Amino acid sequence: MRILVVNPNTTARMTDGIARAARAVAAPGTEIVAVTNRAGPVSIEGFYDEAFAVPGMLAELAAADGIDGAVIACFDDTGLDAARALLDVPAVGLCEAALTAAGLIGSRISVVTTLARSIVPIEGLVRRYGFAERARVHASDIPVLALDDPQSGASAQLEAAVGQALAQDRSDVVVLGCAGMAELTARLSQRFGVPVVDGVAVGVKLVEALVGLNLRTSKAGPYARPLAKPYLGPFKDQAPR
Amino acid sequence: MRILVVNPNTTARMTDGIARAARAVAAPGTEIVAVTNRAGPVSIEGFYDEAFAVPGMLAELAAADGIDGAVIACFDDTGLDAARALLDVPAVGLCEAALTAAGLIGSRISVVTTLARSIVPIEGLVRRYGFAERARVHASDIPVLALDDPQSGASAQLEAAVGQALAQDRSDVVVLGCAGMAELTARLSQRFGVPVVDGVAVGVKLVEALVGLNLRTSKAGPYARPLAKPYLGPFKDQAPR
Amino acid sequence: MRILVVNPNTTARMTDGIARAARAVAAPGTEIVAVTNRAGPVSIEGFYDEAFAVPGMLAELAAADGIDGAVIACFDDTGLDAARALLDVPAVGLCEAALTAAGLIGSRISVVTTLARSIVPIEGLVRRYGFAERARVHASDIPVLALDDPQSGASAQLEAAVGQALAQDRSDVVVLGCAGMAELTARLSQRFGVPVVDGVAVGVKLVEALVGLNLRTSKAGPYARPLAKPYLGPFKDQAPR
Amino acid sequence: MRILVVNPNTTARMTDGIARAARAVAAPGTEIVAVTNRAGPVSIEGFYDEAFAVPGMLAELAAADGIDGAVIACFDDTGLDAARALLDVPAVGLCEAALTAAGLIGSRISVVTTLARSIVPIEGLVRRYGFAERARVHASDIPVLALDDPQSGASAQLEAAVGQALAQDRSDVVVLGCAGMAELTARLSQRFGVPVVDGVAVGVKLVEALVGLNLRTSKAGPYARPLAKPYLGPFKDQAPR
Amino acid sequence: MRILVVNPNTTARMTDGIARAARAVAAPGTEIVAVTNRAGPVSIEGFYDEAFAVPGMLAELAAADGIDGAVIACFDDTGLDAARALLDVPAVGLCEAALTAAGLIGSRISVVTTLARSIVPIEGLVRRYGFAERARVHASDIPVLALDDPQSGASAQLEAAVGQALAQDRSDVVVLGCAGMAELTARLSQRFGVPVVDGVAVGVKLVEALVGLNLRTSKAGPYARPLAKPYLGPFKDQAPR
Amino acid sequence: MRILVVNPNTTARMTDGIARAARAVAAPGTEIVAVTNRAGPVSIEGFYDEAFAVPGMLAELAAADGIDGAVIACFDDTGLDAARALLDVPAVGLCEAALTAAGLIGSRISVVTTLARSIVPIEGLVRRYGFAERARVHASDIPVLALDDPQSGASAQLEAAVGQALAQDRSDVVVLGCAGMAELTARLSQRFGVPVVDGVAVGVKLVEALVGLNLRTSKAGPYARPLAKPYLGPFKDQAPR
Repeated sequence: MRILVVNPNTTARMTDGIARAARAVAAPGTEIVAVTNRAGPVSIEGFYDEAFAVPGMLAELAAADGIDGAVIACFDDTGLDAARALLDVPAVGLCEAALTAAGLIGSRISVVTTLARSIVPIEGLVRRYGFAERARVHASDIPVLALDDPQSGASAQLEAAVGQALAQDRSDVVVLGCAGMAELTARLSQRFGVPVVDGVAVGVKLVEALVGLNLRTSKAGPYARPLAKPYLGPFKDQAPR
Repeated sequence: MRILVVNPNTTARMTDGIARAARAVAAPGTEIVAVTNRAGPVSIEGFYDEAFAVPGMLAELAAADGIDGAVIACFDDTGLDAARALLDVPAVGLCEAALTAAGLIGSRISVVTTLARSIVPIEGLVRRYGFAERARVHASDIPVLALDDPQSGASAQLEAAVGQALAQDRSDVVVLGCAGMAELTARLSQRFGVPVVDGVAVGVKLVEALVGLNLRTSKAGPYARPLAKPYLGPFKDQAPR
Repeated sequence: MRILVVNPNTTARMTDGIARAARAVAAPGTEIVAVTNRAGPVSIEGFYDEAFAVPGMLAELAAADGIDGAVIACFDDTGLDAARALLDVPAVGLCEAALTAAGLIGSRISVVTTLARSIVPIEGLVRRYGFAERARVHASDIPVLALDDPQSGASAQLEAAVGQALAQDRSDVVVLGCAGMAELTARLSQRFGVPVVDGVAVGVKLVEALVGLNLRTSKAGPYARPLAKPYLGPFKDQAPR
Repeated sequence: MRILVVNPNTTARMTDGIARAARAVAAPGTEIVAVTNRAGPVSIEGFYDEAFAVPGMLAELAAADGIDGAVIACFDDTGLDAARALLDVPAVGLCEAALTAAGLIGSRISVVTTLARSIVPIEGLVRRYGFAERARVHASDIPVLALDDPQSGASAQLEAAVGQALAQDRSDVVVLGCAGMAELTARLSQRFGVPVVDGVAVGVKLVEALVGLNLRTSKAGPYARPLAKPYLGPFKDQAPR
Repeated sequence: MRILVVNPNTTARMTDGIARAARAVAAPGTEIVAVTNRAGPVSIEGFYDEAFAVPGMLAELAAADGIDGAVIACFDDTGLDAARALLDVPAVGLCEAALTAAGLIGSRISVVTTLARSIVPIEGLVRRYGFAERARVHASDIPVLALDDPQSGASAQLEAAVGQALAQDRSDVVVLGCAGMAELTARLSQRFGVPVVDGVAVGVKLVEALVGLNLRTSKAGPYARPLAKPYLGPFKDQAPR
Repeated sequence: MRILVVNPNTTARMTDGIARAARAVAAPGTEIVAVTNRAGPVSIEGFYDEAFAVPGMLAELAAADGIDGAVIACFDDTGLDAARALLDVPAVGLCEAALTAAGLIGSRISVVTTLARSIVPIEGLVRRYGFAERARVHASDIPVLALDDPQSGASAQLEAAVGQALAQDRSDVVVLGCAGMAELTARLSQRFGVPVVDGVAVGVKLVEALVGLNLRTSKAGPYARPLAKPYLGPFKDQAPR
């Protein structure tokens, strides 16, 4: 089974971390193909960046050959609906994946993301996925690209934010709200004695599960195939890999 | 006052109709600047088309000079959140505008849009804008570009769909769910004896109202200015008009 | 265009402030007719006062001649539904108007009203208008009639309450929850760097917008004309002006 | 125990039926005092009539001596919040009472009321009382005052509407949505094999229960006593009985 | 009228307190039959205990002779749905009863229960009964069986928790979230100046009311009689009393 | 990996079908241990049967040795919360599993279950899992035990019910609402051209995913370990296998 894991921003170093997190949980027969968006912002902090990341990311999906499913490796589930319309194979977003797993092993969920401006977009996803009564969203005030900079103090800052969220929400599960946080999961879980969920890992397992079930995106509703042939506009040159 | 009315698809003929509808209601001192997206699909039928329409539309907004507000003239409120982050002046979407006006003059709202694949995206907006308890969404099964083709029978088909929606929903206001339906408003209202609301016209009046109130988009929350300078990627050449 | 702005309480001095706020934003061709309820409580602090303000206010609406729309200038939207049944022209309430504008320029809304007993009635309106997920209601503990008494310290107390609400709600827009607060808008907006919305001003602009759109209250639902001719009971003598 | 049952409209014949329904279920020690509003519409069909019924009804409550609780005998729960602010003893509305009982003995509830214009006001109550997921509201198209006119065919028409509602909602309890329907309860229950609930009877039993529990309306929230002494305006002459 | 009050745990001393609370409010003609579950946990602290309490409790209900209604005297409304399917006479749970009464006399409700692990199950009930917008649930961190141990300090601890909940929720009514708290009601109400509601007492009065109204559980929906004859499994020996 | 699949009813023939469905999708290294409840009803049709199935089922879980996760193979997610409190390893219910998968590949979901009396219990689960806006529940009027009786016509009847649900809901995914329907999935999917989801298969894959992610039920909230040691009452003899 081949799973495409696409990083919707253009920072290849971040794709590397995502790929490691994905491969760490992939089943024996699963091949992880990790790609970086070639046209978009260096990181996605809020609505504006997200808008410009989508077409490039869709171009990567359109260009991918022989994949069995896709994980969109950004916590705002960048372009997930459009990806579902484009592809027949299953596509899963990080926020969706992480909330799904958290909901199966706990009751109240604290989501800890990067900057405050991302709270409202993520709350929109929380509501859409049916977790409005169970999950609260918090910011750690760490910019995405500081996450893998050891000088930034991001790790300690995130730990503090997680502790505060758990106390305030009286929650029993934590969801890390950024693909760049994947590698901090185990440590935080140990530190706080609650499950800590990273969407990259869950995304891979959910796609494996759907493929194993032979389930594909329904084409009978809003994810029907685009009417015209896929429109890639200024992105078309990059489509054939 | 200068209001930019941007058509997020690339069909200039449709922009003409939108501009007519906008100018028909603009106040004496209001100048309507109508522009067509230069990079995107010819019409927006669902999630996929929408995704590719956004960056080109934002490029038009970024290139606009000296505007006091903007109307995004598509009923899926294409890229509205990103537009609010990009601009300081108010930006309003058609679905948002039409529901707002309908809610001030009626109680239960029937939205009639184009193809069935657009029902779910519009239901998402209905929920987001707080109208889930009051509005139902219906498809007329008319593709966007058939709307101004007199041979298509679209007009009669829309009338039938509106009649059916009113009966089924026991509603007292109708919202037309596509920018291309603007010019059918008066006739349908007369035919059914209920107010029929077109988002283009309402969008213009709401922007006029906000400008008259000296209200601008708040930069203290998710519509904060983008962190890096506006990223236009492959669209940057078209940005300067 | 003639817009009736009716103050549902009997304090004429308050009507004067409301009229000033209304005229400050009215378009060139708009005439503001400001009237004071002649039978009701001196201020409306909660459910009980509201109940007794309604018939007198409706009598004013019934007596008004040649108006194109009406603004009910109290933040509990006193008798709004009955007014819509009585009139054919559009009628708008302050809470409804202020939330509508706030929702178009921001994301999370803090409403700051007068006494704590008004929180629950206003929360009812917030829910009804579809803002339950976006708006929180706070009391400043200032009685309505203290608002324009310079000795009362109301202005500083309101400023403190607004600051507290913004911090607590992590909101990006403020709505002032009393017609008597209209003239403090600009100062508070400057002080806190977020848009501050007053319902009187928005009410006038929304009615102007609806009239400009030729939209009138639907008579096909719950706002159907009263079955018997308008019943004014003990208020009938005051109806003819 | 003395329970005031107030008919908010001015039709004394209807008060008689309400009084009979109340006395039929009252416990041995309960005295039912039934009064008719002396200033208001002859029947309440929608928002407008309701507005004018409230002050006269509150005047009756203010004038009542030595009562232990009150039932507001109209299905739109006319002025219930204001009544709770005015009184210390418990006050219960018909819609509230009927939904409460129906919710204790069944799962899905069909409410059948009089004219279509009352559907939206009642849906507002259904939502407020927390029954939005369980109850649907239907109109029988019978005007209130036709209910006790044997020539009107109202009884057969109501039976048809109840049957239709049960089938459509797949519900297991019926609530009759008008005080004038009280005496049809038993027959309809027998006819359809499901419990049929009348709010007048339930209202009396709930007030008896609250009095028996020594529970009174909380004065610590929105039902705090009015700040000024009760304002009755043009109704003051009728207050002393 | 005979009302069965069943304590779903096996602690007879607790049944005694429940019986006292029930008899204190029962109407003259009401006989309270209090029984203790003979097969289940000694107290119910969360989902696990609840699951094992249900069949024994249902066995008590099945064995009861000539009862007119039943109160399930545990605040997690243990097995209430199954009890409604088993019985024709009305059955009421404590949480349901207490919220119902609280909602008739106040606006915002603070529920104070025993251990934190019971918050989520009770929140589920709050939502189900339609009180999600009005009630918040708090733990006092007192285990059920400490409640009637004078050495435990439970009474002071509960008082502190109630005070904190009132301040935090800005509520106007308190609901005590455990059958073992019934006898503390009056003192807490006096201490805080708000109504304090105990479900045991309300349960009895609601069953009295339903019986007085001749209302029984509907058998036309999910409470239809079990298809096979009541299955009591390992509990069958205890069924005949 | 060892996954316990427990059939909460006592019909071993049904466990056989469930085991086949589970093994058909299990990953190479996964061992499926299928057990039948030894104390409970022969099938679960509604609230009453469910109540009596829980303790026996929990006894099976308590007796299971060395399992890595559990699937509760009944669509009413019998005793799921109690199972989560009892176990540290992940436990998943069928309704939860099926809705989760359906939500990842489609938009609007039609659930088709057995008898009408199960609609309300399942709607409760739909709401709890956050699918209230996306899923509708329908009955096929087939009793559970008729499902594998070839004489019963159940297969054709189910097909008709699925077709009707798809048309009525305008949905794009179907969920089969009973463990006994697992083996009809492929045929129905082919017949209607939409994904058809069976909870048994999904349950196995979700448990595999959670185990692969090293995620276990959180013990920091309502699923904390029971305070006393597991209480099995009359079931204790059967606990040691």
